[in-house]
Amino acid sequence: MNKKKIINDPVYGFVTIPSAFIFDLIQHSYLQRLRFIKQVSMTHLVYPGALHTRFQHVIGAMHLMSLAIDTLRNKNVPISSDEEEAVLIAILLHDIGHGPFSHSLEHTLIEGVSHEMLSLLLMDKLNEEFDGGLSLAITIFNDQYPRKFFHQLVSSQLDMDRMDYLNRDSFFTGVSEGVISFDRIITMLNVEQGELVVEAKGIYSVEKFLIARRLMYWQVYLHKTVISAEQMLIKILYRAKELATEGHTLFATTALRHFLTNKINHHNFLEDPRHLEWFTRLDDTDIMSALKEWVNEKDEILRTLCRKLMNRDLPRTELRNTPFLETEVDLVRGKVKAHFDLEDSEIDYFVYTQVIQNSAYDIQHNNIKIINNRGCVQDITEASDVSNLEALAKRVVKFAISYPKEIGHPLDEGNNFS
Amino acid sequence: MNKKKIINDPVYGFVTIPSAFIFDLIQHSYLQRLRFIKQVSMTHLVYPGALHTRFQHVIGAMHLMSLAIDTLRNKNVPISSDEEEAVLIAILLHDIGHGPFSHSLEHTLIEGVSHEMLSLLLMDKLNEEFDGGLSLAITIFNDQYPRKFFHQLVSSQLDMDRMDYLNRDSFFTGVSEGVISFDRIITMLNVEQGELVVEAKGIYSVEKFLIARRLMYWQVYLHKTVISAEQMLIKILYRAKELATEGHTLFATTALRHFLTNKINHHNFLEDPRHLEWFTRLDDTDIMSALKEWVNEKDEILRTLCRKLMNRDLPRTELRNTPFLETEVDLVRGKVKAHFDLEDSEIDYFVYTQVIQNSAYDIQHNNIKIINNRGCVQDITEASDVSNLEALAKRVVKFAISYPKEIGHPLDEGNNFS
Amino acid sequence: MNKKKIINDPVYGFVTIPSAFIFDLIQHSYLQRLRFIKQVSMTHLVYPGALHTRFQHVIGAMHLMSLAIDTLRNKNVPISSDEEEAVLIAILLHDIGHGPFSHSLEHTLIEGVSHEMLSLLLMDKLNEEFDGGLSLAITIFNDQYPRKFFHQLVSSQLDMDRMDYLNRDSFFTGVSEGVISFDRIITMLNVEQGELVVEAKGIYSVEKFLIARRLMYWQVYLHKTVISAEQMLIKILYRAKELATEGHTLFATTALRHFLTNKINHHNFLEDPRHLEWFTRLDDTDIMSALKEWVNEKDEILRTLCRKLMNRDLPRTELRNTPFLETEVDLVRGKVKAHFDLEDSEIDYFVYTQVIQNSAYDIQHNNIKIINNRGCVQDITEASDVSNLEALAKRVVKFAISYPKEIGHPLDEGNNFS
Amino acid sequence: MNKKKIINDPVYGFVTIPSAFIFDLIQHSYLQRLRFIKQVSMTHLVYPGALHTRFQHVIGAMHLMSLAIDTLRNKNVPISSDEEEAVLIAILLHDIGHGPFSHSLEHTLIEGVSHEMLSLLLMDKLNEEFDGGLSLAITIFNDQYPRKFFHQLVSSQLDMDRMDYLNRDSFFTGVSEGVISFDRIITMLNVEQGELVVEAKGIYSVEKFLIARRLMYWQVYLHKTVISAEQMLIKILYRAKELATEGHTLFATTALRHFLTNKINHHNFLEDPRHLEWFTRLDDTDIMSALKEWVNEKDEILRTLCRKLMNRDLPRTELRNTPFLETEVDLVRGKVKAHFDLEDSEIDYFVYTQVIQNSAYDIQHNNIKIINNRGCVQDITEASDVSNLEALAKRVVKFAISYPKEIGHPLDEGNNFS
Repeated sequence: MNKKKIINDPVYGFVTIPSAFIFDLIQHSYLQRLRFIKQVSMTHLVYPGALHTRFQHVIGAMHLMSLAIDTLRNKNVPISSDEEEAVLIAILLHDIGHGPFSHSLEHTLIEGVSHEMLSLLLMDKLNEEFDGGLSLAITIFNDQYPRKFFHQLVSSQLDMDRMDYLNRDSFFTGVSEGVISFDRIITMLNVEQGELVVEAKGIYSVEKFLIARRLMYWQVYLHKTVISAEQMLIKILYRAKELATEGHTLFATTALRHFLTNKINHHNFLEDPRHLEWFTRLDDTDIMSALKEWVNEKDEILRTLCRKLMNRDLPRTELRNTPFLETEVDLVRGKVKAHFDLEDSEIDYFVYTQVIQNSAYDIQHNNIKIINNRGCVQDITEASDVSNLEALAKRVVKFAISYPKEIGHPLDEGNNFS
Repeated sequence: MNKKKIINDPVYGFVTIPSAFIFDLIQHSYLQRLRFIKQVSMTHLVYPGALHTRFQHVIGAMHLMSLAIDTLRNKNVPISSDEEEAVLIAILLHDIGHGPFSHSLEHTLIEGVSHEMLSLLLMDKLNEEFDGGLSLAITIFNDQYPRKFFHQLVSSQLDMDRMDYLNRDSFFTGVSEGVISFDRIITMLNVEQGELVVEAKGIYSVEKFLIARRLMYWQVYLHKTVISAEQMLIKILYRAKELATEGHTLFATTALRHFLTNKINHHNFLEDPRHLEWFTRLDDTDIMSALKEWVNEKDEILRTLCRKLMNRDLPRTELRNTPFLETEVDLVRGKVKAHFDLEDSEIDYFVYTQVIQNSAYDIQHNNIKIINNRGCVQDITEASDVSNLEALAKRVVKFAISYPKEIGHPLDEGNNFS
Repeated sequence: MNKKKIINDPVYGFVTIPSAFIFDLIQHSYLQRLRFIKQVSMTHLVYPGALHTRFQHVIGAMHLMSLAIDTLRNKNVPISSDEEEAVLIAILLHDIGHGPFSHSLEHTLIEGVSHEMLSLLLMDKLNEEFDGGLSLAITIFNDQYPRKFFHQLVSSQLDMDRMDYLNRDSFFTGVSEGVISFDRIITMLNVEQGELVVEAKGIYSVEKFLIARRLMYWQVYLHKTVISAEQMLIKILYRAKELATEGHTLFATTALRHFLTNKINHHNFLEDPRHLEWFTRLDDTDIMSALKEWVNEKDEILRTLCRKLMNRDLPRTELRNTPFLETEVDLVRGKVKAHFDLEDSEIDYFVYTQVIQNSAYDIQHNNIKIINNRGCVQDITEASDVSNLEALAKRVVKFAISYPKEIGHPLDEGNNFS
Repeated sequence: MNKKKIINDPVYGFVTIPSAFIFDLIQHSYLQRLRFIKQVSMTHLVYPGALHTRFQHVIGAMHLMSLAIDTLRNKNVPISSDEEEAVLIAILLHDIGHGPFSHSLEHTLIEGVSHEMLSLLLMDKLNEEFDGGLSLAITIFNDQYPRKFFHQLVSSQLDMDRMDYLNRDSFFTGVSEGVISFDRIITMLNVEQGELVVEAKGIYSVEKFLIARRLMYWQVYLHKTVISAEQMLIKILYRAKELATEGHTLFATTALRHFLTNKINHHNFLEDPRHLEWFTRLDDTDIMSALKEWVNEKDEILRTLCRKLMNRDLPRTELRNTPFLETEVDLVRGKVKAHFDLEDSEIDYFVYTQVIQNSAYDIQHNNIKIINNRGCVQDITEASDVSNLEALAKRVVKFAISYPKEIGHPLDEGNNFS
């Protein structure tokens, strides 16, 4: 047979499924589940096009990995077909442990179990099912393979994961600031002493990539309306779990009910396989259908929060560069308490303070290395004399407070440029 | 205040909300509901990017309408600001009566109630709420306004609805064949004797628009996997309603339960306002959460169909230009009956025959009119001597049969080019 | 060395030069000359962006050829590295015999010597210089290689030449109707019994390609202002050669002078190598600098024509579907003769009649073949039952008359939709 | 008549000519001349697509100005139709004084006469021809109009000139790093106290604009091959003028001859109108045709330089952050002198040292002002706390030395990342 399966991807056009084994993996319910998990959870409330899923993302990242492998081979970097398939599988599965609205879930329905840990559990389970066919992929994913560049292509400051999600999130949000020249960067990749490097004339493209990433953080991922909606979802799930624990019966799909009524931490996942099993049945639909029904729930707090979220009556959020003073927070809390006639213990459901931060380039881990015409390798911040990359390594920290719009503007808003 | 609300749309960039009244309409829960109704229902099973919603579509169509109004005013067509707002509202609300997976719903949960009729009911309700502010918009929508071109911009063979959905469906599916030069067509619009016309040099763009539409029909809207998945959904909803009517209790959100347990036709909608009320609470989430739960339902047929749909184990579909013979259909039904051990009455849940058809240009209704340099108006098929538009007016009919893959290829597939 | 030379192409992004030998060919002055020959000669007078050159085109076509070779190899079509380099060279050199404003030149400065013939002469010369390194490429170019598909990739109704020029001319003119999904078509290519075929699901992309080509013909290549400007250039060069032959000294670069003062036909090219040598020094600059200077030439006809062309005072052109009657042409000629006070013999310099024609698909030569899922091969017009490709095979003929605007509109213009 | 003239622009699609008067200006030979002057002179030797002209640029900048005017009016900034036409004319004519290869010309054929001064002379001449119709445009151009924002739209750090050329140069070079979100920036423009400001949420788009500009400088405008080719052209023109002054007869068009044989400075332009007249007849064709002929010129230096330029045998250029030492320069000059057997006075024709510099944002002149939600206006570097705009204000200086490749690599190249 000389045909290849093809997927239409609006970002890259045709994406070819590279092998029959990878095709079978994609068909597996663990991967199909990602069709129903949005990549950027609540962001569509601000950017209506941002409904794309983790499924699309992992297919796209796998496509970029193919391009990177082709480039490296063209530059005479030897890559065996086993290595090729393994690194393609590693990127394909890198997000498999994400649940619906991951960030919110990890703080509520499950207790501090990271998606990375769940990914590994699921990869191991798949490896069993597929008779060890994923072993090399898992070795690369865990950075235990001697040829470091394979892991760096999967996970580093210039990996195919980031390259796809920036591109894709930019495409679907319509925030053109995030568009990156992935093809130019990939064309400039090379391997030196087993590590991934970028050829010198790609330095501008990499710089633009780092800047695009920073802009996407502040315009999309940390957008104040987005973070307040996500905070609201956390409070809703927390309240629901509280009620369920107290014995209230809430509307829920079976999978969601499992996580509402059981206390599940890292340890439980390892001990009882049913938790992982139910986890693989959970997607955005379970959460969204519950939110819809809970707008008529008896509990006033749960009902109020769900109504607000479903009607897009989101909190007002103020961002600034210095922490909010205790007196300011108290002022806000007081107004909210009075307006909604709340107990002290209930105020936290409506007033949220957060610290948000981002640095575009982390100079200390997995630096991006540039190789010049004479084969000399340097960190990108040293290699570039026309750029201002050091500035990108600076961590930016901002402080946020969110509260219901009903109480007006209790604080002088200060300098708010977001 | 000199600021305008802006929505980021990946297809057109920034879309400006044209007025405060329109902003209020968009905030209304009837419009917000469209955020959770996918434009092309099950198509994402074939084109993973096609998750865009009717909300995005109506915002986009409103944007194109603004551009069209600007163009016409620049050509000295007098348009009052009342007329402008009305035609913008008309296009904004044109899809408001769509339910989740409309096509499937109209044949099952409600009995032959068209989305057009529901749109009108909802517009009237909104008009009441907004003290008659939608009256002119409704007049235009119903084609009762004397200046015909306003209605033609909302609904005709070259309306802003089609122009947006072709563009948008093409963008999100990644099927670039559907891309149209909407800006070129809009720039070429004019009004002659109260009717919409296209200036002669826009003829090639219109031709390409018609061809793009035809290609989208055969590559997307009538894609054989898409139509078989939609048929499967119809069968699921039909079975669920059957069971609910017989008194079985199925998992369902309250809104969905209302439509599963009540028999609701056109007449009922007019008589009892609760039906319309529940209708406005129904979106894709209600259907999807039910499908997910029903994979563990007691009823074997419902359970089997839901499992197949959720696992993307979709029927094999054959398309051809001549009807399938009774003997062929019987052969297929026999194999399915035997393989799944079905009663005669149950075969229809697994074997579907359909007739699908499309013509790119309907020469008999609402023709597209071309105006030449000397002011003479003609139908586009007559005006174009270099084109082959007559061919586009031909209706293409195809015949489909779908059945579970488990039974192999019982028929000689014939010439299958889709 | 593991670096590859890269060219930035605005149409495709990075284009990699596939080998050192091809790099040397590109550096040769024969190829570099194409940097100064515009792809679509006078078209920039109508579409100001259309200044792209034959150099860009051949690099682009070579890039598409690389993609096609990759696709075919992925489908297990065996292609040796010699064959690969040869077919890349064949497409790279396919336009090497084009002179500046080829069409105009072939009718004036040289007598009926086609660019195909000049291409072959130049390829032979290069083959000599490069010690036979182009032999296989020339064999493929001449369709003497047994594996037909190589020649078909270079020259057929679906070759890389057409695919690049449609894309490129569309990109630089801004006529988006010409955009084609080259990547989709290339992905669908395959080889069956040594011939190029397209897989069935690529049929819509091919159809759109044919339609795009037709639209580009009528909107760009045969645009009435473009064809009249080109006709004017022919008349100018004809007049200049006439004057030079009579002994007038005209401003000219040395290369242009060679062709103005010598009568050079096919035979002469073969006999005297100096003609070919001077031909390789001729580009758009030679023609344009002469036109600029000749606006002050003594000869009134030459001066007038050059002034009109340089000031973009182009003839009025009427197009219609039936030939202009002798009486109509005489009427126009009479008015022009009187207005410009011309001799009978001089009228032809100002009044041009032309027959222009195009068919989108030539059903009789080098058909496009479709292969279906079961391996059956058919002509595209037979394979497609939803399309109207037969209509595209119809030859469209139009008749044009051009004359100076000074005489107004002597004819009733008839139905003019271009 | 209700039709508008339209120009197809590949960058923006359709551009509408806003008025009949502006249409007449565009038809004037002064503006038509810009059709034959490339926007980025020799850059196409590095980026083959970069053949776009100043004509396209001024049409594009005028289009952006229309968009900006629409935006401001939508935000209730009062703009009369006279002001609108004037600012459109001002941007349309802002580059009218550019000669072919401006930078090179200003240092050779004319003596230190800037294109700004020539622009003003030509605008005055046009104003006379058009009976004062350009007076307001000239007032705006000269920043003498009280409403400052009009001039700022024409000339400032965020003007329509820069916005178009970044977009356009990026489009035609294929250097996607230069793509800017012009529509987003324009949508964010506003006027506060008569000055142009950007609304706060546009800050990221402006930042990306500044970064794009910096990247374009280092990747395109100051690309080392581009600057060395331009330096070579300066030397050629200088030599030609030297020879012409000494009485040698060189091939040249009449316009070029005028500037080769006359010494023309600022003063001469004001005194003798013939200079300006000949200047308006000079375009790229005059220079290019001379270069082509001079490859056979008697003078060895002129001949050698022209041959090298026409064969793309460009100098090797080294860039670094510290000045080249006198000893280094002497070493290079010595090698070149010996290899080409030159007199001391002739070495400068082959060895060039240059200082190149750029700062992305000039904090001292015409700052970009941001207005926040509460109406407070700040410089962008102060307004943005998440950005690193201060770094962009840093001036980057680099040092270049260029010499013929024949002498190898006489210097240790140092750290060369461009």
